[in-house]
Amino acid sequence: MAYLDKIQNPEDLKKLSITQLKEVASEIRTVMLDKISKVGGHVGPNFGIVETAIALHYVFESPKDKIVWDVSHQSIPHKLLTGRLDLFKNFHIQDGCSPFTNITESPHDHFNVGHTSTSVSLACGIAYARDFRKQNYKVIAVLGDGSLSGGEALEGLNIAGYLKSNFILLINDNEFSIDPNAGGLYGNLQALRTSNGQSPVNLFKAFGFEYYYVKDGNDVQQVIDALNIAKDIQKPVVIHVHNKKGKGLPYAEQHTELWHYRVSPFDPVTGETADLNKNDSDSTIDFILANPDVVAVVPGTPLFGRTLQQKCPERYIDVGIAEQSAVAVASGLAASGVKAYICAASSFIQRAYDQIMQDWTMNNTPATLLVFGGGIYTSDYSHVSMYDIAMLSNIPNLVYLSPTCDAEYKMMLEFSKKAQFPIAIRVCQDDESEIDKRKIPPLEYQLNTVKQPKSLLKNTTAVYPNISFMLKPEIYQQGHDIVIVGLGKFFKKAVNVARIVKEKFGCEVTVINPRSITNVNFLFLSGALAIKSDWQLLVTIEDGIVDGGFGQKFFAHYASQKERVVLNFGAKKEYTDFIPYDALMERYNLDDNSIANTIIERFKKL
Amino acid sequence: MAYLDKIQNPEDLKKLSITQLKEVASEIRTVMLDKISKVGGHVGPNFGIVETAIALHYVFESPKDKIVWDVSHQSIPHKLLTGRLDLFKNFHIQDGCSPFTNITESPHDHFNVGHTSTSVSLACGIAYARDFRKQNYKVIAVLGDGSLSGGEALEGLNIAGYLKSNFILLINDNEFSIDPNAGGLYGNLQALRTSNGQSPVNLFKAFGFEYYYVKDGNDVQQVIDALNIAKDIQKPVVIHVHNKKGKGLPYAEQHTELWHYRVSPFDPVTGETADLNKNDSDSTIDFILANPDVVAVVPGTPLFGRTLQQKCPERYIDVGIAEQSAVAVASGLAASGVKAYICAASSFIQRAYDQIMQDWTMNNTPATLLVFGGGIYTSDYSHVSMYDIAMLSNIPNLVYLSPTCDAEYKMMLEFSKKAQFPIAIRVCQDDESEIDKRKIPPLEYQLNTVKQPKSLLKNTTAVYPNISFMLKPEIYQQGHDIVIVGLGKFFKKAVNVARIVKEKFGCEVTVINPRSITNVNFLFLSGALAIKSDWQLLVTIEDGIVDGGFGQKFFAHYASQKERVVLNFGAKKEYTDFIPYDALMERYNLDDNSIANTIIERFKKL
Repeated sequence: MAYLDKIQNPEDLKKLSITQLKEVASEIRTVMLDKISKVGGHVGPNFGIVETAIALHYVFESPKDKIVWDVSHQSIPHKLLTGRLDLFKNFHIQDGCSPFTNITESPHDHFNVGHTSTSVSLACGIAYARDFRKQNYKVIAVLGDGSLSGGEALEGLNIAGYLKSNFILLINDNEFSIDPNAGGLYGNLQALRTSNGQSPVNLFKAFGFEYYYVKDGNDVQQVIDALNIAKDIQKPVVIHVHNKKGKGLPYAEQHTELWHYRVSPFDPVTGETADLNKNDSDSTIDFILANPDVVAVVPGTPLFGRTLQQKCPERYIDVGIAEQSAVAVASGLAASGVKAYICAASSFIQRAYDQIMQDWTMNNTPATLLVFGGGIYTSDYSHVSMYDIAMLSNIPNLVYLSPTCDAEYKMMLEFSKKAQFPIAIRVCQDDESEIDKRKIPPLEYQLNTVKQPKSLLKNTTAVYPNISFMLKPEIYQQGHDIVIVGLGKFFKKAVNVARIVKEKFGCEVTVINPRSITNVNFLFLSGALAIKSDWQLLVTIEDGIVDGGFGQKFFAHYASQKERVVLNFGAKKEYTDFIPYDALMERYNLDDNSIANTIIERFKKL
Repeated sequence: MAYLDKIQNPEDLKKLSITQLKEVASEIRTVMLDKISKVGGHVGPNFGIVETAIALHYVFESPKDKIVWDVSHQSIPHKLLTGRLDLFKNFHIQDGCSPFTNITESPHDHFNVGHTSTSVSLACGIAYARDFRKQNYKVIAVLGDGSLSGGEALEGLNIAGYLKSNFILLINDNEFSIDPNAGGLYGNLQALRTSNGQSPVNLFKAFGFEYYYVKDGNDVQQVIDALNIAKDIQKPVVIHVHNKKGKGLPYAEQHTELWHYRVSPFDPVTGETADLNKNDSDSTIDFILANPDVVAVVPGTPLFGRTLQQKCPERYIDVGIAEQSAVAVASGLAASGVKAYICAASSFIQRAYDQIMQDWTMNNTPATLLVFGGGIYTSDYSHVSMYDIAMLSNIPNLVYLSPTCDAEYKMMLEFSKKAQFPIAIRVCQDDESEIDKRKIPPLEYQLNTVKQPKSLLKNTTAVYPNISFMLKPEIYQQGHDIVIVGLGKFFKKAVNVARIVKEKFGCEVTVINPRSITNVNFLFLSGALAIKSDWQLLVTIEDGIVDGGFGQKFFAHYASQKERVVLNFGAKKEYTDFIPYDALMERYNLDDNSIANTIIERFKKL
């Protein structure tokens, strides 16, 4: 490479000519393609934003000037320009750099970021601090068009619009919506594009920004020119940069949605890859397809959008990145007699905590939330997905079910269809273990009438559910000495642990699949367990944090009985960043042998 | 009254002439003034929206057509037009109607609503359901200008902007911001007002809406005319109605901010009232005023805005209703070396759950969150404030302190100023009890170095805090038999319960003020308690829900010891609506004598 490997920091970039900057762009694409085609990663966003990143570092003085990257999965060109070329050689793997901005990786990164729509408000905080401390530097937030629909980003536009000092919002417009009839703000972005930025209706001006349009953001000179204008303006300015997503890769330019992210390696020339041909049919899709009265509401994460969008577009509502509104829309549908299924990832649904309470469960509307990907995984800090249990199970009126395998998940989907109250299901589609092939008992539940508390007001008592729901746990096996409750995916772990404990120490173990995180039928359980009443040690194992989670609640009332000793297994309350799965299991004392040994040691002391 | 008491439902309204409708407006104001001046309530919003409510019910056919009220504290005129005149006679008190919309109160109310910015997305859900079921009715969302800044409302504008069917968004514009230099979207609302709706820059058109402006929303004819135009349009339409907040009450028209809400009764003619003269100085204000390096970030709830805004405007950042961004802005300030204090109510801060994790604690920035009003209170369902403990204490990296009185709160404010990590404080400013006059011990804490887990990546370990913080609990008294831990405001309850238990049963009781909900120094506690090692019964009492709360965590590790029996006292996980405080205490078995009796009964069986 003629240039890139000599750029140790952005200062080195400033010495180059425009022609040389174009060479740098080409070298960045070569380096990215070489690595991402081998290990996967965000293709479209990073290839589209190369010239923008170069222009930003050419015009501004990072890290004195602060560039805040939204979502930050498009920050690779920025990383390559700020001394992380070597680190990127190990991108995504052992001893490499993070695919996200990370404050400990470089002084050019100002926040750890992985969720969308946060950059404007975070950058506003920096701008307030600068003004308060009477300092003198520029603040730039870089926001992708897809992230613009999120509530926090739009709140941020309003707050930034009040500033009386330098604040630059760079909109990286990848033509998120290419439907010529698109409404919403994407219709306005399109109008701005087709009018070369001249459309009098202008979202950004409406929020109080000055506005400049860059027709071809992949022409580095155009971006530099616009940034040079914006740089010294002492009020909020939007630079609307029209980029080509996947720029430089014909297959990615053509199929922008498919090439947003690649899990598997691909052929760098042809784009040929295994994961584009995989069949994305599964129990969730099958269920929605089979039930013409059911509507899916998806907040911008195309988990299985393609199939549904093709096969039943009238029942597939993608609200864009807008988790709060996804929950409200589903509740509105349910209130109007349409069964709505919110499909969201564990890591993202927490963006709708207030709406889950206020818009949904407080109104007791019979929508269903399918929580995907909940559990302990090797992920970056921003996508840690083990908080959904502690969050959702402490919300009133919400039944949170946790199947152990695909067959049980299907049962629960069928059940949710008829239920007249709010339900969440922690999706588990495992069906590979021998344990999954057991005969899953049907869902047995009780609906009891609840006595209403007396309000000061007339007529408002039915705000409380009229019924309480109690689901019978599955008693997989019964033994004298120990009871192990394995939640969801970790039910199999409980079965294994029971086997090890028996083999090693001869204890007789009861193993329970609670089936539900909330609303367990404890009356049944206590009765069933009383048959073998000499058990003393109670154990819970869950695929989530212990604090505020399932286990602490599950045996809370047994803790008031002298004869019971309780051990709760699960993760520690912390943010982890790309910790290998085995290391996480070891760290949390969660591998089967560790759990078994801890149980045996405790049992010995009883 | 000539008209209002004959209006049993909106049909009756449709028979009246415009002149008669004006009479109805006048009667509504008389009825509202008579009642609200006696019992308090939302003055400005309800007096401003009278003609709008009349026009809505005159033009549309509620409940077939669905009118969704945002925040719904401005729904009194709507209630008076939908058969609730008698119920309103007992407004806010025994056997009266709710100040909010309530699905069990009337078929004209479609949701239980109390938080802002929800109406657009909820109404979108209804519109989707209507279109899916091929029904034919109108959907109207009514949104106040103050609520427009909230992320969920702005997300909703974008989603509604995509609809291809009837959807009417009525903006009730009360001139939320009257600063002629206002930026943000309020600058655009002002531009639309001054241009009689003709400004080419138009926020609503930018989101894809058709747009109509009503210059004088307190002229019922003007609103009717606009709604008649909008009624049959098969795409999203905004009717921007310019209303006078507090219309009809000279004092409320003049001082719109002061007259948004009145707690106390007031003189209906002069507006003379006790609570406008009260001194709003307190420990929080004193602390911020005394520390010129500290900045307050307030999400639209003027808890103590007036004083700070007057005395240190450069250190008072009101981001409007935008809790998500308030947290992000504070984190940005803290990341830039400015100590930021987010001041928010328990019920509202949950709107920023994801930002508390992603933007703040995951970045480990040393901002502080002051949580006001957390605890069990007589409130409507939407302002139930007993969830903050279960929410915040299960978030990594966040230390959640809980003072028992004003003196301890002041100590914690001083501590937070110097701390280099995220802190939340559950504000408690009580100082009236004898117990509050005890000598509060200084805050004693340990900062231990934490071993970093090994990431797959280079350089990212410091994402985890380098230190762990452990705060020493206060041991108020020591006794042999029972340990009672009383959290925050309920510490006094614990002391009282201990006294009753001793008086009634002769037990010796240890009473502990944990001082912190998280990060309790258990090493110290176990050591201290071991001095009197024959205690067997552990009791926690907290002013919040038991599930996922403080108590279940506090004694979780003691539950693994055979000799300990644990009782957790707190509220049930449910939404309550205007339940009297005593009834709540009784319902949750939380009055002092009930707790004492439960403890004694359990102790007898040990």
